[in-house]
This record gives sequence, C-alpha cells and structure tokens, in this order.
Amino acid sequence: MDANDLSRRIDFLREIDRLKSVIRQSPLLDQSRKENSAEHSWHLAMYALILADYAAGPIDITRVMTMLMIHDIVEVDAGDTPIHGVSNGNQAALEQKAAERIFGLLPENQNSALSGIWREFEAGLSADAQFAKALDRFQPLLVNIFTHGGTWSESRVEYQQVLDRYGPVIQRGAPELWALARDWVRSHFEE
Amino acid sequence: MDANDLSRRIDFLREIDRLKSVIRQSPLLDQSRKENSAEHSWHLAMYALILADYAAGPIDITRVMTMLMIHDIVEVDAGDTPIHGVSNGNQAALEQKAAERIFGLLPENQNSALSGIWREFEAGLSADAQFAKALDRFQPLLVNIFTHGGTWSESRVEYQQVLDRYGPVIQRGAPELWALARDWVRSHFEE
Repeated sequence: MDANDLSRRIDFLREIDRLKSVIRQSPLLDQSRKENSAEHSWHLAMYALILADYAAGPIDITRVMTMLMIHDIVEVDAGDTPIHGVSNGNQAALEQKAAERIFGLLPENQNSALSGIWREFEAGLSADAQFAKALDRFQPLLVNIFTHGGTWSESRVEYQQVLDRYGPVIQRGAPELWALARDWVRSHFEE
Repeated sequence: MDANDLSRRIDFLREIDRLKSVIRQSPLLDQSRKENSAEHSWHLAMYALILADYAAGPIDITRVMTMLMIHDIVEVDAGDTPIHGVSNGNQAALEQKAAERIFGLLPENQNSALSGIWREFEAGLSADAQFAKALDRFQPLLVNIFTHGGTWSESRVEYQQVLDRYGPVIQRGAPELWALARDWVRSHFEE
C-alpha cells in the first residue's frame, strides 16, 4: 500500500469530522436540541437499509447508503440549506466548490468515485438518487409529524406548501411512502 | 405492502433517534463537545468505505457498513461502555436484552437479519466483524492522536495500555492500519 495514498484518506476522514458541527433546522425527536448533519446522514442510511423495498425502481442499496452518507459532506464548507429557508442563489456554486475541495483530499480514484455519486444525488435522475432524495424528504417530514409541527410551525408553513415541498420528491422515489406520509400530513393539519 | 409491517419499521427508525443522545468519552476533533454514538456510527461507516482495502481478509463492504451503523444501537438502552472505563460485569446481558427489545420492534425477517449482524459483530469471528471491530478501535485512537492525548490523558492511560487495548483488535482486522497507528502512538508517548 502507498503511504501517501493512506495519508490522504485519513486527511479526508479527519476533515469530515466537521460535519458533526453543521446544525440543521430539524430537532431530535425528544426536542432536546437541533440535529446535526452527521447524525442525520447516519439516520438516513438506516432509513435506506430498512425501507429499501419501498424504492420506486430497482436500486443498489450499497450505492444508496453511500450516497446518503456523503450527500451532506459539502455542508462542511457550504452550510445547511433548510427546506423552508430562503435560497441565497449561490448555494449550488458553493457546494460544487466544497465538493472539489473536500472529496479532492482523497486519492484520485476515490475522489472521482465519491464526487460522481454526490453529483448523481444532486442531479436526482437515477433510481438510486431518486430513492435517496425521497428519504431525505421523508425523514424530516416524520420529524415534523412526531414533534407536532416542529419546523412547520416555526416557519409558518401551510398544508399546501408541505404537499408541494415534500410530495413530488417522495412520490418520485418512494410512492408508497408518500401515500402514507400524505395521510399523516392531512391529519396533522386537520388537528 | 403490509401496513402493519411498515408501521413496525417506522417505530424502529423512530426509536433509534435516541442514539443521538448517547454520549461517548471521545470528543469531536475540535474538542467543542463529546461525540455521540449516532454520529460516531456514521463516521465509522465512512471509515469502512474509505479504508475497505485495508481489511485483513476478503470482506463484504455492505455488511461491514451495516454492521458499523447498527453496532451501537443497543446503547439506547444499555449505555456506552468506554474502552478505558470499568466494566460493570453485567454489560453483555444488558446489551443482549436491548438488542431483543430494539431490533424486536422490526418485522421478524428484518429483526432476524439485523440481530444476526449485531451478534456477528459482538462475536468478532468473521472477517467482516474483525474489520469492523478494527475500525471501531482505529477511529478513537486517531481522535486521541489528533487531540494530543484526549481520553488517554483524562484516564491516565499509559503507552503499554494503549498498545494492549487497541493493538490486537486493529492488528487482527486491519494489520497495515495498526502498523501506522503503532508508530503514531509511539511518537505521541515520546513527546
């Protein structure tokens, strides 16, 4: 094995420790604090593992888990973009630059592989990416249901906005999960 | 799909949110706070992905990632066992009971699969488990190196104890990583 190659891999693993300090809008279910992007990524990979057979099409579970584990790493430089927040218009360029710097810490073959999987997630065209994106919406939706409104109340988000912001993405990647989630959302807003 | 089956899966995914509140001895690398077991599990799965070719024998990377993502879930009930702490003698029984309760939330086929992978990790006999266990030692060792002593200083752990507590497990699952780590440990204690 190549010592320089190993050293680069460890630099990357060291750098991504910072994802544990990127704070999201969503709280933990016990509402003791906000969730960070590293533990969110772990939880999403668990969602993928447990709900794999709800994907709209045939998926490669290893790729989906990998995609979800790395999908937020760019936030180490670019920060989190809340689903109900206002986009600064520059986020895509910031994230692209972040991906080049952070995945670029790795040896070239790993950089190329992970950058490719990250871009595939962002593009959202493959079955793997569409399922991953569906879960990345489904999990925060469940957090809002389980915490009786959470970020929806904070951001004054209304019923139709929830349907618009979560529905198409979950429907595309995991239609049966949307059928369930839609009922829960309706009940929530009828309460 | 079976609504009751899906409901059980979601109960499990909801319950394991609590892993984000299980606090480990190791700090984040910036030493702003202690690490929790959910983000630790994410980081270990990333270690597996990036260092897969350092495994002592042939491994199945999907199983190793899964194993590392679930290996600490029993801590939701049983708490974390620090490597330099004193065992209460009852930990294995507590963890077994926790595994039965928490994986038991899942439909029977998923319960059986994940319980099996968890027991395989605990037994540490398969190539997958030995590599996973090696990483579960290697990551906290790196944290101690990068934070100039960390839990070793706090727990007054000496050079030979570090070699004894980390060495055999890392050597067995990832011998080349131990060759590197051993040099770092020596340099650390010579400083």
